[in-house]
Amino acid sequence: ESGRLDLPFVGVSTFGKRPLVTDWNAIEADAAILGAPFDAGTQFRAGARFGPRGVREASTLFSFGHAGAYDHEDDEVYLGPDVRIVDIGDADIVHTDTEKSHANIEAGVRAILKAGALPVVIGGDHSVNIPCICAFDDQAPFHLLQIDAHLDFVDERHGVRHGHGNPMRRAAERDHVTGLTQLGIRNVSSTAKEGYAAARDMGSDILSVRQVRKLGTEAVLDRIPDGARLYVTLDIDAFCPSIAPGTGTPSHGGFLYYEVLELLQGVARRNRIVGFDLVEVSPDHDPARVTSILAAQVALNFLGFIFAARTRG
Amino acid sequence: ESGRLDLPFVGVSTFGKRPLVTDWNAIEADAAILGAPFDAGTQFRAGARFGPRGVREASTLFSFGHAGAYDHEDDEVYLGPDVRIVDIGDADIVHTDTEKSHANIEAGVRAILKAGALPVVIGGDHSVNIPCICAFDDQAPFHLLQIDAHLDFVDERHGVRHGHGNPMRRAAERDHVTGLTQLGIRNVSSTAKEGYAAARDMGSDILSVRQVRKLGTEAVLDRIPDGARLYVTLDIDAFCPSIAPGTGTPSHGGFLYYEVLELLQGVARRNRIVGFDLVEVSPDHDPARVTSILAAQVALNFLGFIFAARTRG
Amino acid sequence: ESGRLDLPFVGVSTFGKRPLVTDWNAIEADAAILGAPFDAGTQFRAGARFGPRGVREASTLFSFGHAGAYDHEDDEVYLGPDVRIVDIGDADIVHTDTEKSHANIEAGVRAILKAGALPVVIGGDHSVNIPCICAFDDQAPFHLLQIDAHLDFVDERHGVRHGHGNPMRRAAERDHVTGLTQLGIRNVSSTAKEGYAAARDMGSDILSVRQVRKLGTEAVLDRIPDGARLYVTLDIDAFCPSIAPGTGTPSHGGFLYYEVLELLQGVARRNRIVGFDLVEVSPDHDPARVTSILAAQVALNFLGFIFAARTRG
Amino acid sequence: ESGRLDLPFVGVSTFGKRPLVTDWNAIEADAAILGAPFDAGTQFRAGARFGPRGVREASTLFSFGHAGAYDHEDDEVYLGPDVRIVDIGDADIVHTDTEKSHANIEAGVRAILKAGALPVVIGGDHSVNIPCICAFDDQAPFHLLQIDAHLDFVDERHGVRHGHGNPMRRAAERDHVTGLTQLGIRNVSSTAKEGYAAARDMGSDILSVRQVRKLGTEAVLDRIPDGARLYVTLDIDAFCPSIAPGTGTPSHGGFLYYEVLELLQGVARRNRIVGFDLVEVSPDHDPARVTSILAAQVALNFLGFIFAARTRG
Amino acid sequence: ESGRLDLPFVGVSTFGKRPLVTDWNAIEADAAILGAPFDAGTQFRAGARFGPRGVREASTLFSFGHAGAYDHEDDEVYLGPDVRIVDIGDADIVHTDTEKSHANIEAGVRAILKAGALPVVIGGDHSVNIPCICAFDDQAPFHLLQIDAHLDFVDERHGVRHGHGNPMRRAAERDHVTGLTQLGIRNVSSTAKEGYAAARDMGSDILSVRQVRKLGTEAVLDRIPDGARLYVTLDIDAFCPSIAPGTGTPSHGGFLYYEVLELLQGVARRNRIVGFDLVEVSPDHDPARVTSILAAQVALNFLGFIFAARTRG
Amino acid sequence: ESGRLDLPFVGVSTFGKRPLVTDWNAIEADAAILGAPFDAGTQFRAGARFGPRGVREASTLFSFGHAGAYDHEDDEVYLGPDVRIVDIGDADIVHTDTEKSHANIEAGVRAILKAGALPVVIGGDHSVNIPCICAFDDQAPFHLLQIDAHLDFVDERHGVRHGHGNPMRRAAERDHVTGLTQLGIRNVSSTAKEGYAAARDMGSDILSVRQVRKLGTEAVLDRIPDGARLYVTLDIDAFCPSIAPGTGTPSHGGFLYYEVLELLQGVARRNRIVGFDLVEVSPDHDPARVTSILAAQVALNFLGFIFAARTRG
Repeated sequence: ESGRLDLPFVGVSTFGKRPLVTDWNAIEADAAILGAPFDAGTQFRAGARFGPRGVREASTLFSFGHAGAYDHEDDEVYLGPDVRIVDIGDADIVHTDTEKSHANIEAGVRAILKAGALPVVIGGDHSVNIPCICAFDDQAPFHLLQIDAHLDFVDERHGVRHGHGNPMRRAAERDHVTGLTQLGIRNVSSTAKEGYAAARDMGSDILSVRQVRKLGTEAVLDRIPDGARLYVTLDIDAFCPSIAPGTGTPSHGGFLYYEVLELLQGVARRNRIVGFDLVEVSPDHDPARVTSILAAQVALNFLGFIFAARTRG
Repeated sequence: ESGRLDLPFVGVSTFGKRPLVTDWNAIEADAAILGAPFDAGTQFRAGARFGPRGVREASTLFSFGHAGAYDHEDDEVYLGPDVRIVDIGDADIVHTDTEKSHANIEAGVRAILKAGALPVVIGGDHSVNIPCICAFDDQAPFHLLQIDAHLDFVDERHGVRHGHGNPMRRAAERDHVTGLTQLGIRNVSSTAKEGYAAARDMGSDILSVRQVRKLGTEAVLDRIPDGARLYVTLDIDAFCPSIAPGTGTPSHGGFLYYEVLELLQGVARRNRIVGFDLVEVSPDHDPARVTSILAAQVALNFLGFIFAARTRG
Repeated sequence: ESGRLDLPFVGVSTFGKRPLVTDWNAIEADAAILGAPFDAGTQFRAGARFGPRGVREASTLFSFGHAGAYDHEDDEVYLGPDVRIVDIGDADIVHTDTEKSHANIEAGVRAILKAGALPVVIGGDHSVNIPCICAFDDQAPFHLLQIDAHLDFVDERHGVRHGHGNPMRRAAERDHVTGLTQLGIRNVSSTAKEGYAAARDMGSDILSVRQVRKLGTEAVLDRIPDGARLYVTLDIDAFCPSIAPGTGTPSHGGFLYYEVLELLQGVARRNRIVGFDLVEVSPDHDPARVTSILAAQVALNFLGFIFAARTRG
Repeated sequence: ESGRLDLPFVGVSTFGKRPLVTDWNAIEADAAILGAPFDAGTQFRAGARFGPRGVREASTLFSFGHAGAYDHEDDEVYLGPDVRIVDIGDADIVHTDTEKSHANIEAGVRAILKAGALPVVIGGDHSVNIPCICAFDDQAPFHLLQIDAHLDFVDERHGVRHGHGNPMRRAAERDHVTGLTQLGIRNVSSTAKEGYAAARDMGSDILSVRQVRKLGTEAVLDRIPDGARLYVTLDIDAFCPSIAPGTGTPSHGGFLYYEVLELLQGVARRNRIVGFDLVEVSPDHDPARVTSILAAQVALNFLGFIFAARTRG
Repeated sequence: ESGRLDLPFVGVSTFGKRPLVTDWNAIEADAAILGAPFDAGTQFRAGARFGPRGVREASTLFSFGHAGAYDHEDDEVYLGPDVRIVDIGDADIVHTDTEKSHANIEAGVRAILKAGALPVVIGGDHSVNIPCICAFDDQAPFHLLQIDAHLDFVDERHGVRHGHGNPMRRAAERDHVTGLTQLGIRNVSSTAKEGYAAARDMGSDILSVRQVRKLGTEAVLDRIPDGARLYVTLDIDAFCPSIAPGTGTPSHGGFLYYEVLELLQGVARRNRIVGFDLVEVSPDHDPARVTSILAAQVALNFLGFIFAARTRG
Repeated sequence: ESGRLDLPFVGVSTFGKRPLVTDWNAIEADAAILGAPFDAGTQFRAGARFGPRGVREASTLFSFGHAGAYDHEDDEVYLGPDVRIVDIGDADIVHTDTEKSHANIEAGVRAILKAGALPVVIGGDHSVNIPCICAFDDQAPFHLLQIDAHLDFVDERHGVRHGHGNPMRRAAERDHVTGLTQLGIRNVSSTAKEGYAAARDMGSDILSVRQVRKLGTEAVLDRIPDGARLYVTLDIDAFCPSIAPGTGTPSHGGFLYYEVLELLQGVARRNRIVGFDLVEVSPDHDPARVTSILAAQVALNFLGFIFAARTRG
């Protein structure tokens, strides 16, 4: 311990109360958190620009000043002192300019990759996934796992190709993305019937919440290429609005907490996680802050699973 | 498409962004939405008077300007251009006067029936079901399916016979109502033990949430007269407060989303739906608006199921 | 009266419960309300995209089904049956694309002008003023009155020229804008010292809230060219956050209600009002809805003043 | 002191933490507080039914367990141990039945009067003033002071005579009401031009907020019959929405705190206060609870002024 | 019935609208409710000091003026007129002084025990369990059942031994506590790995939510000493944040309503319940009030189960 | 500029986006911001523990990446690059232990003083002023200016001497505090009549809001020892609840923005400001965040005034 009690409500809100590194040429860490506070890609309520701050603050609830987080179910201490995590702040956003904002996000992810750290990006709306995926274009290929309510597979409407309804289509077009698994997809969205057909044509495996439940966690995991490098993009609206009301386009009938957690624990065990983003948390639509808490709880647990697997590796 | 992108947040909030028809003698539609913003029948918190506006606005989230709504689980495009739905605005409400307000609601439903359209009424508190049922007194008889936390079977207390605790009793008294199925009923309410006995005596089939779960969807559907004309009254507090906090008298332990959706899909398939109302949404008690979104999502899906069944018919 | 009581909480929320005209080639009115739900130009919290809906709903509070609104202080019935006001819905917004969105707003204003009606635009963030001003480029010149907390006179930063910090600079560059009066300007904003100098160089008259108070309403009115055609742009953050918390960039020390109302009543009396916009209302940051109510109350009163003056001629 | 510290947040919320007297035949007090949780008379948002509970809870903020409340500006200890105040709970409300609900309120006020105590009624919407005034029909006549945004002088619309837009008309018709002073009246309401004329014809003195300010407190007090028995009805929407957002029909441009307080201090000094009601507080529209706090603060201060004046007598 | 309709929203908020007994030497009841509004023991957000008031108000929703509460699933009338329940108000809290505040809570519980009534304590944060357990030191020993997200088994950190992370450790040290069953425990908390080991060493049986689900209710009940005297401490954060957002340290993945209810019904049937506390409800973080409603609903049902079991003997 | 646009919503929330210095032995700055997130001293609603985080986030609204903040009314660029401000994070708080928490705050202020920087402390409740004042006991004496609704001059009640009702009494007892000016004091509080007498006996100058207004800013400033070293303690509840609802004990009738700002500008000009604290901001009671914005706006402006005066010096 540090000599301080450092209760959750005490201190400046960096992610997990980890060190703030503002010089992106001096990242020395196993994982680096980048905020991507861009929400001009949204089609209903905006507000995800405050996602990074909201998730950072919520993450302090799980930061008790202990050396690592003990989970009695797994009998494991996660994220002990050997796992170096830093918060590198936010990508610079230029209002009214999607291109520049996305370029700045991409630059941040590239800086993390250059430092050899795991990129973890907190959105922002789901369009921030586009530059995240771009930043890996000089890395080894990977499979993409999306957990989301919406397919986000619109090619183009009214000229829009980089909004929050487009990222999976943009990813599928990339050479370094070898395939997609899309979980939680349900109900109406900006992707029309044609988009589903296109996704399937381009190799997507699409499952709804009910389909995932019916199959069970292990069977779903079996559909993801075993051992593949895996990038995970998690839209908070994959979850049921009961635990994730604070998002732009809530869709009822979503996943519950352990359903997603066990999927993430599974892929952390079976795949090499090369990065992940967590998007669409909108704190101003989250009056009891449970959505930010959910996002922080999921992100910290996933980080724990990833580094526990690497240690065992 | 219309030449407009027409994102969900754009435009005046009519139900599903459908045309507004203010002349009730000129309804030309397959279904017509009527608001019934009356909440003087409530026994805890009021606010359902803003239900119609809240549900209308939430319904725009599911209105992407596509020609119909594609559901990949059912591989079906619902509510395509062939289904004509209109919003006919609200029944006129006269404060302090339950009788006149109810009469105006009844007049609205009669106008829809006269036009040969399916009446869909958005409450308002559950007392608005009373004039809805009345309006069918010159139609063929039907069975009544209630999905609700509360039995609403009080005959009279302190002279009150038309509050939100009375509608099922009033319906059961009607000749054109051939029977009742009451699902989701749980815990304490304004209906005392005697009310339950009376309901059963008058032919009601009462099941709690746990009983419905134990039986399963199909077995529950089997208890509803097969092929019967069916009117559905859905009190949003049938749902768990986790997804429906914005209501006057929340009761824990309610239905989850797909439990109700699958029941509605079942009756749409097995019965002729003659009308439905959706009541007790109180937007001012719904800080993240998930309750209004739930109501809109359920209503739009139910409409989709109904007209898909009619097409197949 | 219409035969209906039509209480404020009853009915679909068009502006002032006025008719909805969706065919922009068929506007027959003295004034037409256009929503401009664009908020990608914001630099702190977004949400003004819901401004048009919020103001529309709030406007129903002042719509009691009377033929006109009686003000006992002025002993005048405003907006009687002779004043034809219509709501023409919203301009189409294309997410991630400022240019197209602005063009659509401009098209809406041009349609209103073509119909000979007074354009009233409800934002959206203050950048929507840019297309509003553009739409007048084939009209007679006018003076521009801005009521706002912020100068909004940034020329360009990081390439941004059409965000909500730029509109007054863009307006000042226009030939058909003969001068600016900027009232309520206070404290820090995105406009740096250089911007103030540029504004003054380009002919702006800048007064803070305290300066306006010290001068008094009449003296301030005297600084606006008497009898000039006048366009008014009102940013809701001109008002004190006590009555206008629901906005993106609140700034303390703003105007109180009657201070602005009396200025508006003054210019309506002394100038030909050629159009106005009211921007930056963000309903999701307005928990008690007083900001939307303020916007509606100001807009309806200003319309009343304008048409009362025209009648008097 | 009681041996307890009794901090404001501690204890069951009776008004001012005063004793709860449930037997209305056993009221022994100088003043008795009655809740009148009726809100079916509202024309926009309901919620005033929770006014009594909200004001009670807020009143505990001013209850520090001291023997009386010291005001350093007046150098006076108000409401010392000699002033016996009790809370007699709420009048019984019957949903959907305005007549019975009003009768029960009237019965409560009559019980207080019978006990020789000062009736203080916490609404509820403004229609609860109707039974309050009725209850005095066997008492000596009094002048009525209304502080409100709205004139509430509608005779009848669509048969409604006992809604919250009617009470001042009903009062003016009473023999035991000798005249009305109506302060704070502004902007549009359910009272049309004819209502204002009728009010003036029936002897009302109507002043807007700006007119009150221009005249000054003393000049306004001079317009109220000196020494007359006075009943005061205070609608919380008389206040500016900045301090009273939590009400059904907010109207901008209202009174500030001391403006009303000084009027109340003036009439307490100059008139015999025979009772007062404080209406239209809606806690569910008051997210920071400042409206309930305002109501409690005003009511407690007014009680202090009244009994200080009686002591000085 | 009382002659009054007594709707839920009517009347001063005592627990279940039961009589308020302020003289702690005159408690004549089967069960007595004590508020313990202390929250200085919290490590994230405070606010549980308003728990007693919040739960009291919410409890009125289940108070319809009937003689008892009929549950159709159990076909039982609970809490009929033979069960005497009183509300004895709150323990006196002294800010900045944990010791005195805890002593006052202990005194309240002792008064209830002395009167032979069942103590039911509404917190306040979980540290209020410490004085509750102390108050039983002259009673027969009992087993302790905790339902909670967090183990609360910290011995001491920075000198703190009586915060909300310590109560189970303090209880385990007591001679009259014969053992602990700790259900719902999950994820990170202030208890580090050492705390879990210590708990197990001191005889605790610890089960997570998933472990409880996997075992099933009956198997879990079997792990609690059959027939033992049992004290139950229920931290509202044991529940899923979907239904209990209004608490200081929400933790996702918690229990749903019936999971806890059936456990409580089970222990009421199998054990002698000697008292219970319900803690960590924070109304100011509960915008739709569903958490207070949950707490009230659980507490009233548990009371019903306890006294039904006693009657059956 | 930094090469980044750095919009207000972008980046980790340190105060004014200034550098975070976690090594308190390495403070090199003209002013250092310390958070003091302690709220166990409150007597109504808690929540001020989140004050430091709330004010930090709000301060970013005024941080546009410019080199300094231009105020056109003063024609001055405040806080230019020559003024070095750092954020040193929060004092460590130990729950349930007022003494240790206060000691840690004191240590933080001593560290700032040792570094020769101006201490600026963001509370936390007003009791945090006690250790702030203590930390100056080896500095030259100063006069204390309190701006507050409440006198906070309780000596002791139930043993409490370090709650938020005691700080001014504690300060007055100190040798290095030469006198007090207490502005804004009004209405009922925990200080009884005796406390006022004691304050005056110990040399306090007490003025209410109305008295300050009547005197005018200059006359009030004249009552403060000219040229004296001055410490300022600003309780946000000094302000009117209209602009400062987010606080524990709101009191109506408070100061408006410019009233306080002009006092602060006056003392910055006339006195040597040796430190200040800003307390009682409770973000969870501030739904539109205007209170945090107010606090940030006041603190940044006061810092600007202080360093502008020093430059002119």
